[in-house]
Amino acid sequence: MIRTAEQYVESLRDGRVIYLNGEKIPDITKHPKMKGPINARAMSYSLYNHPTFKDLLTMEEDGDRFLFLWNQPKTSEDLIRRRQVYITCMRWGAAMSGMGPDALAASGIVAARMDKQLGTHYTDAVEDYRKHLKAADPAITGAITDIKGNRSLRPSAQVQHKDFYVRVVDRQKDGIIVRGAKMHISATPTCNEIIVSPCRAHREEDKDYAVVFATPVNAKGITLLTSPATIDETGEEATWNWPVSGRGAGVSECMIVFDDVFVPWNRVFMCGEWQFSRDQAWLFGVFHRLFGTCHKVISTEQDAGIAALMAEYNGLDRYSHIQEKLAWLAMHAQIVDIMAQAGCEHPDVFPDLGLVAPSVSYINVAKFMFANDQHETSKLISDITGGIASTVFNYKDWMNPEERPYIEKYLAGKDGIPTEHRIKAIRMVKDLVGHGHDGTVIHAEGSLAAQKMALYAYADWERYKAVAKRIAGIPGWEEHPALKDLPEWPPKSVI
Amino acid sequence: MIRTAEQYVESLRDGRVIYLNGEKIPDITKHPKMKGPINARAMSYSLYNHPTFKDLLTMEEDGDRFLFLWNQPKTSEDLIRRRQVYITCMRWGAAMSGMGPDALAASGIVAARMDKQLGTHYTDAVEDYRKHLKAADPAITGAITDIKGNRSLRPSAQVQHKDFYVRVVDRQKDGIIVRGAKMHISATPTCNEIIVSPCRAHREEDKDYAVVFATPVNAKGITLLTSPATIDETGEEATWNWPVSGRGAGVSECMIVFDDVFVPWNRVFMCGEWQFSRDQAWLFGVFHRLFGTCHKVISTEQDAGIAALMAEYNGLDRYSHIQEKLAWLAMHAQIVDIMAQAGCEHPDVFPDLGLVAPSVSYINVAKFMFANDQHETSKLISDITGGIASTVFNYKDWMNPEERPYIEKYLAGKDGIPTEHRIKAIRMVKDLVGHGHDGTVIHAEGSLAAQKMALYAYADWERYKAVAKRIAGIPGWEEHPALKDLPEWPPKSVI
Amino acid sequence: MIRTAEQYVESLRDGRVIYLNGEKIPDITKHPKMKGPINARAMSYSLYNHPTFKDLLTMEEDGDRFLFLWNQPKTSEDLIRRRQVYITCMRWGAAMSGMGPDALAASGIVAARMDKQLGTHYTDAVEDYRKHLKAADPAITGAITDIKGNRSLRPSAQVQHKDFYVRVVDRQKDGIIVRGAKMHISATPTCNEIIVSPCRAHREEDKDYAVVFATPVNAKGITLLTSPATIDETGEEATWNWPVSGRGAGVSECMIVFDDVFVPWNRVFMCGEWQFSRDQAWLFGVFHRLFGTCHKVISTEQDAGIAALMAEYNGLDRYSHIQEKLAWLAMHAQIVDIMAQAGCEHPDVFPDLGLVAPSVSYINVAKFMFANDQHETSKLISDITGGIASTVFNYKDWMNPEERPYIEKYLAGKDGIPTEHRIKAIRMVKDLVGHGHDGTVIHAEGSLAAQKMALYAYADWERYKAVAKRIAGIPGWEEHPALKDLPEWPPKSVI
Amino acid sequence: MIRTAEQYVESLRDGRVIYLNGEKIPDITKHPKMKGPINARAMSYSLYNHPTFKDLLTMEEDGDRFLFLWNQPKTSEDLIRRRQVYITCMRWGAAMSGMGPDALAASGIVAARMDKQLGTHYTDAVEDYRKHLKAADPAITGAITDIKGNRSLRPSAQVQHKDFYVRVVDRQKDGIIVRGAKMHISATPTCNEIIVSPCRAHREEDKDYAVVFATPVNAKGITLLTSPATIDETGEEATWNWPVSGRGAGVSECMIVFDDVFVPWNRVFMCGEWQFSRDQAWLFGVFHRLFGTCHKVISTEQDAGIAALMAEYNGLDRYSHIQEKLAWLAMHAQIVDIMAQAGCEHPDVFPDLGLVAPSVSYINVAKFMFANDQHETSKLISDITGGIASTVFNYKDWMNPEERPYIEKYLAGKDGIPTEHRIKAIRMVKDLVGHGHDGTVIHAEGSLAAQKMALYAYADWERYKAVAKRIAGIPGWEEHPALKDLPEWPPKSVI
Repeated sequence: MIRTAEQYVESLRDGRVIYLNGEKIPDITKHPKMKGPINARAMSYSLYNHPTFKDLLTMEEDGDRFLFLWNQPKTSEDLIRRRQVYITCMRWGAAMSGMGPDALAASGIVAARMDKQLGTHYTDAVEDYRKHLKAADPAITGAITDIKGNRSLRPSAQVQHKDFYVRVVDRQKDGIIVRGAKMHISATPTCNEIIVSPCRAHREEDKDYAVVFATPVNAKGITLLTSPATIDETGEEATWNWPVSGRGAGVSECMIVFDDVFVPWNRVFMCGEWQFSRDQAWLFGVFHRLFGTCHKVISTEQDAGIAALMAEYNGLDRYSHIQEKLAWLAMHAQIVDIMAQAGCEHPDVFPDLGLVAPSVSYINVAKFMFANDQHETSKLISDITGGIASTVFNYKDWMNPEERPYIEKYLAGKDGIPTEHRIKAIRMVKDLVGHGHDGTVIHAEGSLAAQKMALYAYADWERYKAVAKRIAGIPGWEEHPALKDLPEWPPKSVI
Repeated sequence: MIRTAEQYVESLRDGRVIYLNGEKIPDITKHPKMKGPINARAMSYSLYNHPTFKDLLTMEEDGDRFLFLWNQPKTSEDLIRRRQVYITCMRWGAAMSGMGPDALAASGIVAARMDKQLGTHYTDAVEDYRKHLKAADPAITGAITDIKGNRSLRPSAQVQHKDFYVRVVDRQKDGIIVRGAKMHISATPTCNEIIVSPCRAHREEDKDYAVVFATPVNAKGITLLTSPATIDETGEEATWNWPVSGRGAGVSECMIVFDDVFVPWNRVFMCGEWQFSRDQAWLFGVFHRLFGTCHKVISTEQDAGIAALMAEYNGLDRYSHIQEKLAWLAMHAQIVDIMAQAGCEHPDVFPDLGLVAPSVSYINVAKFMFANDQHETSKLISDITGGIASTVFNYKDWMNPEERPYIEKYLAGKDGIPTEHRIKAIRMVKDLVGHGHDGTVIHAEGSLAAQKMALYAYADWERYKAVAKRIAGIPGWEEHPALKDLPEWPPKSVI
Repeated sequence: MIRTAEQYVESLRDGRVIYLNGEKIPDITKHPKMKGPINARAMSYSLYNHPTFKDLLTMEEDGDRFLFLWNQPKTSEDLIRRRQVYITCMRWGAAMSGMGPDALAASGIVAARMDKQLGTHYTDAVEDYRKHLKAADPAITGAITDIKGNRSLRPSAQVQHKDFYVRVVDRQKDGIIVRGAKMHISATPTCNEIIVSPCRAHREEDKDYAVVFATPVNAKGITLLTSPATIDETGEEATWNWPVSGRGAGVSECMIVFDDVFVPWNRVFMCGEWQFSRDQAWLFGVFHRLFGTCHKVISTEQDAGIAALMAEYNGLDRYSHIQEKLAWLAMHAQIVDIMAQAGCEHPDVFPDLGLVAPSVSYINVAKFMFANDQHETSKLISDITGGIASTVFNYKDWMNPEERPYIEKYLAGKDGIPTEHRIKAIRMVKDLVGHGHDGTVIHAEGSLAAQKMALYAYADWERYKAVAKRIAGIPGWEEHPALKDLPEWPPKSVI
Repeated sequence: MIRTAEQYVESLRDGRVIYLNGEKIPDITKHPKMKGPINARAMSYSLYNHPTFKDLLTMEEDGDRFLFLWNQPKTSEDLIRRRQVYITCMRWGAAMSGMGPDALAASGIVAARMDKQLGTHYTDAVEDYRKHLKAADPAITGAITDIKGNRSLRPSAQVQHKDFYVRVVDRQKDGIIVRGAKMHISATPTCNEIIVSPCRAHREEDKDYAVVFATPVNAKGITLLTSPATIDETGEEATWNWPVSGRGAGVSECMIVFDDVFVPWNRVFMCGEWQFSRDQAWLFGVFHRLFGTCHKVISTEQDAGIAALMAEYNGLDRYSHIQEKLAWLAMHAQIVDIMAQAGCEHPDVFPDLGLVAPSVSYINVAKFMFANDQHETSKLISDITGGIASTVFNYKDWMNPEERPYIEKYLAGKDGIPTEHRIKAIRMVKDLVGHGHDGTVIHAEGSLAAQKMALYAYADWERYKAVAKRIAGIPGWEEHPALKDLPEWPPKSVI
């Protein structure tokens, strides 16, 4: 089934234990700071039911309709469509949580792999859950990042306590008991269920930490501590002051605490198979970086656009050093777009399972490029806009009839551009560069270090080295399949 | 005289017309958001009167005491002490406005230069104002940045109106009438008087814009529109959440509107001498970049320190890629410190006037380095800290007895470090990287472009080119005084 | 027809006037420094005739075979195949000159455009020349870069003389007389004919410089001054010392002087149509950047490979800071490859002409990325290899039986790697980073500034600005076709 | 004594065993490739005897004169003069080997430290050697870099053999026997004696590698393998083609093989004291980075100069993007100069020994900045110069009367600049950016990694962390001596 937006909103009144800003919230649909993110996510349900988008966003099977994202990707086309699903919803303004579907896709692969290699039956649980998703249409998210404690110690070697990574504390007849916490899990307040995955490779001594499962957010023992909103305003003032982030107000991330939570076996997708925790983390990462690059297709275009607009409004668009900066922003947007698209067009294929995932190499290139250059992006936008992005007036100033004439007169830029437009553009810059987004971007969907590791791990070093050996005249390259037909270097002479 | 902190606070109840956040403030000393910045500036008065600092910060002359900053720099030692004055107050936590004293120093030079070249008598006005400063000890700031309108048009060519740059609209017997506005002028709410200077070179057709003068902030016709506070909390919550900027809360910058304000001739330091407006802007810039680099001696040390602390608290300080990032931060701090110090040790000397200014080259190198690398600094700090800087909990969460045990347990880092310490360190990171400071830093005390222009304009190209010509074997280098004694290249052989 | 390698070599004995290293060369096929480049180019003829490559590299039409590159690209598939042609030949070791075919492709489009807009008949001449190419199979190059003189003056405003750009000095009944010179024209010594194009937009007063034509290199009045070889060794010593560039020894670039050279009208593709000189220069650039990116697919793989090999031979491949550098090199290779491929997959289409060219945006992104990062590439390779790349011994040292035991013993790296292999790898590094390639790469196929201009000129600013306007709440975005169906921002609420 | 240049040259005929380019050289003073470097070094002797420089470069003691560099630095002034000695000789064109004096200075400190801590008597040997230096005035160099083999293995763990690092193989009554090899040791062919030092910290199991000693280069068992010259021309052609490096032609670096060489005890300055090998390597590095930064004061000025000259000759010096690049080059030169100067003005002081060394922090900042930015420097120079730096003609082309008129006409740049001057400037660029200097610069005087380690190791982390703790409100900062008098943060309020 596909729920309506109203059904979705109604489902959030489920008794969950949730805190925001030091306050326990009895019903999130009534809380002013929660309205923004709930509306944003509700909109995705409107789109699922919208005649224009239905065919892209949902599938029909046996007379039933469900989200395309519940589907396990089997082909390059599946990945390209997945990308379109994400980008289309984001462009319209619907909040998407890739974390849930991405964890599901990773589980689909890893369960199949475990079953094949170890004779387990996790695929049954994954498929049972998929059936539930198709039938009940819950909003899901995925929880991956553990709390970690001392980063240089493995989970069971931690000193203060052993719960810095989520772990199984009891295996019972009907299910398992889990304990620990996950940190900065996006879209948690607006979801119904969570898929929990490990965030790293574990060793045998840490096998209790190799656990994957799904659970409702209102399960007994779950407490949500929401990270503070990034802005304080609500309503029209919020979106006037902060055009990009004012609607959701940055209310999204939660610390999810699991105080001995029970999970039935049909929602357990890994339990102790430590050799596969790396696969789950890694594959979640690959799918989730695809999601992240979709976000950045949107945001890099916004960045290029607002910079070009500010250049125009400031009367600067004819200067070559400004054009050079704009060119860089456009190039940046194109690289992110094309490299992520290439990750879908040339996926990593698992022929034994009949499944695919986005190319680790290309998707990490796309992710690395946008994350690594985020601060440079902000610097260029700030440079073009000027110091006014720091000191621009706000909604209340603009609405004060004594202040407005001064602002109107003096904050004008180029002739013909209404001052209000220039101020709105500046507010958008202020929102983009002045809310700590930069730091978030280098960490969301995996840190810079994670990208570098992935880029190194999956580059085709044998081929690259064979190429160099051939030119350098070092034997060994002839054995590489990609080079075996090439002549030796330098090739034979005619004269 | 040197006023007491209390006298200073009292003097701010002067009937000024000031707005903040859409609201007109009758008495700023009573407004909760103004308390932080007023206290910070009041502290400088406490220090002037403090037995430990008195000798550094103030001077005695003819039995009277006054600020060292009222002094016109005549030697390298004066500049080195000026630097110590700024740095010492900043370290203690006293807000310093360099803008006022820096504009005064620029006026001292430019007035002398105009009088010498044009036979004017502006030095009399400057010295009269200096006498007033010594006698009355007002808190002053300097207003430099014009509103600018269309950046590609000169002042009198602007289309909507002619007031995008402050200008003289009438010359009367007793004084002049000025109109226009200055933007993002720091420390305005906490000052008593302002020195206004042009921000660029003007041409003859714009000579009405070549005007320098001093005025009380409560003069008739002056309206202050304060830029919104960067944070909403006040009191303990403010400083807990935002350890660096919580006290002042970012209440500092004003748009100052001059609606036909009268300035008597003994407060006018330039009026129409368009050929000297560049000098005023440039010299203000040089002095003010010295001030800016003092700020950054403080802040680059904070940056290096908090990064090192987070590395330690996260258990990461033994990893070589972390050490490499920390090394860069320490190097960055050292370059800013040493290059700015060199700017004082090797000043530009104006022998005909018997005056000095910080070396344009070295002080701009220092400024360029910190401004250009600000985003890189934030990136490294964010990278070391982790995503937690985006999602860390706040004062209200920490104070809630239901949430605190979870936070206490799960946000612990390395064993032996209290969770509270780690959270405080993270809040400091969040404050440093998440408040739009990056964009401010590349613009405050002059944009990156301004530094590049200064670096180019003042490099010793004749010497550099002569050096290259000698090596390349191109004649002409022998005439350069620095090279004339060198042998030709390559020098004569022995064998 | 397709000539044999031998026929090709024979054709170079054509009486051309050519200098190298201060010496006039009567027969280039006999000159030791010319053997390398001639052999390299001859190899392309061997491949055209090779059963494995014939189908890719050549086409059959009406029973005749000719190079695929003589074909005017009409589809994305044509461009993708063009890319494969270049890359395949390069990988095998055949020197390809893209300059000729790229100038031909540009002329094909520009002639059609002129004919359509001005009613000229240049397409006839282009097609006549194409027929000649198919029939005679000459080796061609393209001459684009003018000498330029004072870069800040246009051609007819130059002071010393008016020949800094190639120009028409006489229009006669049978043809035209041209004068001037072209600089650093690749592959000239090894070609039979040249297509000459302007290198920039010209204005009306410079219309004599808007001239495109083809000519044999041995035409009366043409003098070739070959740029000095980059290395002095020949034969085995050359390729041992310099594995990458030893064969051709850098003998490729010529200054081509045109001393009143006659060109018949059926080889003239533009003559005075100054409004189209920009098109010719720009389109040549677009096609030629495709060629350049093919080269860099090859060389970036070599760079990644030799760096990985040196890391291994030095025993460094387990260190994370080394892996990080290697990851960057692999990422760099992937971006160049994918962005250039995207330039063919998503070409710029000229529907009125039925023709295509590589996407200006994507191909310039690819070119900019490799050119801008060339110095970084060399830095990383040098850093991994160590100082030994500066001081490594050469062929003569290695062949000296007294020196070899010392070298063998002491230049060993990791156990199990023969010293000879390590030295060969180091020689390859020395060749890659120590021959001034870095500077060449940032200029070949167009300077960095040219890329930036192209990236700016062809970015979709209207769309980017509309995207920003929608989010900022500034009207006007609704009119953009790509956005018109989107809802306003922020979208309607459910609750 | 101070020898004459002629005495110095004569002393090089000492029967040394030396190879160059596969050839054994019986008398280096007769070899055409050796003339350049010998003349360059001989020139330093001319300067020592020159009335203008004598007082700076040499000292008088007890009626005898000797080099200032034989002096052990005891004060900041000693270091500042040392810097002047190096820079003055370099500017005049005299080759200086800092390696010898720098190793001597390191030995002076380390011997004193060992004697103090271990009761050894190495200072006697060092002082005996110093006496010899003063009396005999030999040209010395210092050998530091070991061959290393597998970089991830310590010396005694190497697999192929144990001689990858120089070691003591026998301790005899009169002296020691050493074996191994040192790599790329500058100025070896032109020196009389060498001081050999370990290049890293050694552990106890490697104590035989902790050995420091001095030896003549013609000692029995020493073989010198000279790295190939970087250019092939000699005489006038060499310096015309390569204005910067043509004289010395890059003949400087040797692999020095020690085949069981005997060293008497009075020339042994460390033998087995493994705990101090790090000190010797580190202190050598500090002194030698001072030397390296002197070189770069010279070369960064050349870089800025030639770039400015090319901008002028190409008619580009009015463009803002060119000025921006030039500004960067000037800034770069100033940072290297000032930071190195600061390293001498604020040295590291060893009060227990009464000795000093350049500040590890500042001198490494200077070194890191020039090494890390070397490739950027080359990129900017190449960018400004244009592709002509790759293809410019050479001495033989210029001297050919048939080619010269074409070159003269067409390679002209801006009107008024003789073509010959432009070509000479371009040849200088080609020399600077096209000879692999970039790679050399990042390794000479210690790799980038070495600088980063030093910068990290010597930064004042305790102070930086205390600064951050104070602001963040974390106790502990009060104990730091530099902060203990500061008030707590935020300071007390007035209102």
